[in-house]
Amino acid sequence: MRLTNRLIYGAVEGGGTKFVCMVGTGPADVVDEVTIPTTSPTETIGAVIEFLARKRSGVELAAVGVATFGPIGLDPESDTYGCVLKTTKVEWSGARILSPIGRRLGVPIGWDTDVNGAILGEARWGAARGVDPALYLTIGTGIGGGALVNGSTIHGLLHPEMGHVPVPVLPGDPFPGICSFHGHCLEGVASGPALAARLGRPVEEIPSDDPAWDLEARYLAYGISGLVLALSPKRVVLGGGVMKQARLLPKVRRAFVDVLNGYVDVPDIVEHVDDYLVLSALDQRAGLYGALVLAERALAAPKRGL
Amino acid sequence: MRLTNRLIYGAVEGGGTKFVCMVGTGPADVVDEVTIPTTSPTETIGAVIEFLARKRSGVELAAVGVATFGPIGLDPESDTYGCVLKTTKVEWSGARILSPIGRRLGVPIGWDTDVNGAILGEARWGAARGVDPALYLTIGTGIGGGALVNGSTIHGLLHPEMGHVPVPVLPGDPFPGICSFHGHCLEGVASGPALAARLGRPVEEIPSDDPAWDLEARYLAYGISGLVLALSPKRVVLGGGVMKQARLLPKVRRAFVDVLNGYVDVPDIVEHVDDYLVLSALDQRAGLYGALVLAERALAAPKRGL
Repeated sequence: MRLTNRLIYGAVEGGGTKFVCMVGTGPADVVDEVTIPTTSPTETIGAVIEFLARKRSGVELAAVGVATFGPIGLDPESDTYGCVLKTTKVEWSGARILSPIGRRLGVPIGWDTDVNGAILGEARWGAARGVDPALYLTIGTGIGGGALVNGSTIHGLLHPEMGHVPVPVLPGDPFPGICSFHGHCLEGVASGPALAARLGRPVEEIPSDDPAWDLEARYLAYGISGLVLALSPKRVVLGGGVMKQARLLPKVRRAFVDVLNGYVDVPDIVEHVDDYLVLSALDQRAGLYGALVLAERALAAPKRGL
Repeated sequence: MRLTNRLIYGAVEGGGTKFVCMVGTGPADVVDEVTIPTTSPTETIGAVIEFLARKRSGVELAAVGVATFGPIGLDPESDTYGCVLKTTKVEWSGARILSPIGRRLGVPIGWDTDVNGAILGEARWGAARGVDPALYLTIGTGIGGGALVNGSTIHGLLHPEMGHVPVPVLPGDPFPGICSFHGHCLEGVASGPALAARLGRPVEEIPSDDPAWDLEARYLAYGISGLVLALSPKRVVLGGGVMKQARLLPKVRRAFVDVLNGYVDVPDIVEHVDDYLVLSALDQRAGLYGALVLAERALAAPKRGL
């Protein structure tokens, strides 16, 4: 029987409030799925393992991919590989994610940040299909970004932390920003909580014609322009709750072209910015599907045994 | 005779005032070298070709690498491949660099920006040996950067234009910046000409205890921190004329740690910033030696015929 089983992947997207897990091979082949609340590492990872290890008729896990909130240890030579690093979620600081999954399942596991996962998903099935270099940026309760460059995401000193890039203070804006590290970085002035703090009301209650959206667009444009100048992506995919405001994207596009001011003089930006700055096509599922790509890559070239 | 010739590379670094050309295989094997003034494309490229094509006893060119000022066309599928794109040096806008060299020499040619060349040189023989991802930033008459990520430099929409990333206006600084596109971008406030304009005197005449160096360090720190958050390099190499001011580098390191404020919580930054932010080891020769790497790579995997 075993030899006739179809090989599929396990995918896990770990977030601050929930872990979404699936088994399958792509958006059109979701064999099973579950959402697990983020409580303690032991409890949550335990439930993730139970889901992944479940016997399912006719299929068998070949590899697992995990895309999770960070910071996380990505250096296979380091003891912190497979762990969450020091984070504001105190109980998760130092939590081992990969080793318990690997011990139980005995298959290769790929591992990356949620936003690196998201760009892998978008580049495979979403709004950046086949594009490299490509950039994904989520603007929600935080701001984070992932990039695909020369075939892979970026694992360096740590991993990119694009939400915290510096942005200028816009003239006449007295808001000091809410980032506990930097005050006025991109996340500090343009995340959902920043927008809410600026206006003293939840983002969902800000009218679509409030001038705050123009300010938001301009701050995002500064952040995106810096990332574009650093990474030269062929497309930028935007996701996250704040981008649900339908009038925001056109404003961001205009502000982005305005901020660059003709400096990157290519038709993609000057003439076709609507195809350059685009919304996520996979929405909340980008990281989860990206985890499937991580699984596939782990199977092709296992980075290290667990 | 021909079969006994040693195979070597040609390397060209093209700058706004001069083209430096060499033949050899590395810093310890410079067989011949020449410096050619940058005049018209026809005259300058003609002289480059004459130098490269010269017969030299016992050696033979296997490939050529060219690292030059930009913007340049790097997309092998585009008609602009091998050309300088629209630039403020009007006579060079649209100039074909690669095709005349290729026609005359008939060997594979690699091609990249001067700063992408510089990081390839530093990563091979200089201050970032074996490091990937790694970042090179030159602070001189302009500011530019190149990065090595996942084994290659970044060729995307165009190529990185790191000098123009946005930076905040520092409190109490009335200087509007001199960038003709952005006013107050990194290059607009922290390049050599910006520093000179701010103080009304040439950079070489600014005393080493002038408070302007603290401001300069802080602007550079903001620029570098944004690039580090975007690219997560394992080391940052700084070059260019402005960095010749010996008191600047320690100030940049302190300001960089201060600006990040513990956010990227890794020993490389928090404890060992002196090994993280370092000066170029190849100085003016980084791009030239990087062109040797481009030649070597072109030989290994020729990107396109000319």
